[in-house]
Amino acid sequence: MPDDALVEAVTNAGSVVVPTADADALVWIGGPAGFPPLPDTVRWVALATAGIEKFVAAGVFDDRRLWTNASGFYAAGVAEHALALLLAGLRQINTAVLDHWAKERIDPAVRTLRGATVAIVGAGGIGRELTPLLTACGARVIAVNRSGRSVPGADQTLPADRTDEVWALADHVVLAAPATAETQHLINSDTLAKLHPHTWIVNVARGPLIDQTALHRALVDGTIAGAALDVTDPEPLPLDDPLWSLPNVIITPHVANPASGLTREMAPFLAENIRRFEAGEELLAVVTPGAGY
Amino acid sequence: MPDDALVEAVTNAGSVVVPTADADALVWIGGPAGFPPLPDTVRWVALATAGIEKFVAAGVFDDRRLWTNASGFYAAGVAEHALALLLAGLRQINTAVLDHWAKERIDPAVRTLRGATVAIVGAGGIGRELTPLLTACGARVIAVNRSGRSVPGADQTLPADRTDEVWALADHVVLAAPATAETQHLINSDTLAKLHPHTWIVNVARGPLIDQTALHRALVDGTIAGAALDVTDPEPLPLDDPLWSLPNVIITPHVANPASGLTREMAPFLAENIRRFEAGEELLAVVTPGAGY
Repeated sequence: MPDDALVEAVTNAGSVVVPTADADALVWIGGPAGFPPLPDTVRWVALATAGIEKFVAAGVFDDRRLWTNASGFYAAGVAEHALALLLAGLRQINTAVLDHWAKERIDPAVRTLRGATVAIVGAGGIGRELTPLLTACGARVIAVNRSGRSVPGADQTLPADRTDEVWALADHVVLAAPATAETQHLINSDTLAKLHPHTWIVNVARGPLIDQTALHRALVDGTIAGAALDVTDPEPLPLDDPLWSLPNVIITPHVANPASGLTREMAPFLAENIRRFEAGEELLAVVTPGAGY
Repeated sequence: MPDDALVEAVTNAGSVVVPTADADALVWIGGPAGFPPLPDTVRWVALATAGIEKFVAAGVFDDRRLWTNASGFYAAGVAEHALALLLAGLRQINTAVLDHWAKERIDPAVRTLRGATVAIVGAGGIGRELTPLLTACGARVIAVNRSGRSVPGADQTLPADRTDEVWALADHVVLAAPATAETQHLINSDTLAKLHPHTWIVNVARGPLIDQTALHRALVDGTIAGAALDVTDPEPLPLDDPLWSLPNVIITPHVANPASGLTREMAPFLAENIRRFEAGEELLAVVTPGAGY
């Protein structure tokens, strides 16, 4: 079923929507289930998600054509959601919603971003968008990314192999890294022990980055202050999961990049990639399937 | 009972804490109840609150000395809380906290600040702090203040007598005006009718700025999308108030400027005002009691 926003992007880019058998390129907005067999004439597949671990697991990728994902296309929106989650935690909005006018409980628990140090672990597109939001709020940013190449606006950028240094430095942590073998349970009982009793952890990346059993224990024990999660492991998080019952947890149902607005957000990036494809230029967000991102 | 943070500020400014009878200046961190009779030797009274309507009503002010309040001292923190409330509303965090993994309900209701127009009504100190936070998030700001003097970073600044123009222009509204006769029920059934079904109203100013009966009706009818309130009329908001039961309402218990951190936030401004007092310079935040701010 062609999507209106994407058909408009294709048309505005001077291309036409045709059956897959006649296509030079396939735009695929679903998951790996139902992914069609591709004729060799399809030289480019544009996936609509940023995370591609399910496509990797399903063996969808081949090396007979170019593959792009949506890495970075939704970064501004996801960064906004990360800021919303972090501020909601610091400002005790979850507590306020559940416990009416609990001023004596909430007032002393309110925290601020002014003067706080926030670590963004996995600072790619989302991190680049989130950094100026945090610094505008008076926070200092420590970015961690694979290369250690400096993130504009960050006070400090560390390469991923020095991730272990940030836990003690950070007041709060935002996870924005892809789900790979290396990032599996990046937040575990060891790393949680290095964080602070006032720390909020925000996850807008993928659920498996956090060992949820260890997180639950840390939240119950007061090892950290709270967790604000847009992603969980598994999803949906079962309604009897013990995380739901904790007062210092905020869980949104994987809506940092809402499905309802996905193709509208993707459209301008798709149009640009069609222009590049026609011009023989390098595409945005080319996938390296072997690396898992 | 002298407060540690303020005593330190007084001492660091080179002054000493003495009994009121011997004082040149009085620092008063409570409300009007128990305000002491003042000898004429007290030439300056420093109040610790930004809103002074209760002191006005209690007849505390006189014209025999200088009075300052804390106008602007807490502005950065209150602006952060306003941003937290607005983002929590747009990102459906209240719904997510109450209705576990309600993805089908939440996903299509998520909104963004990117490209949105936010009106700050009563753009003084809080508005000046809030404007760069909103523009960092990709919003456009329309400021309304008494003078209409341009607020840095705002796309447009209107004088208060043109407030009525902003309702139709704004996607979202933040109230940051003092409580005066003119701002009483500024949000009423007429102004609500000019707003949009996607509009969130944030109030970090004073409860009486909103006609809560009219607000409740507008929220039930879908005239606007939601309301995120740090202040209510009265406070505490009674636990049987119908606003508590609405899913599109967020109420925090007047903690934008938490009492627990008040004197720590005030201290550097008090130190600066002591320096100015000793030097015979104009003080920060001089009160104009007749105007109510």
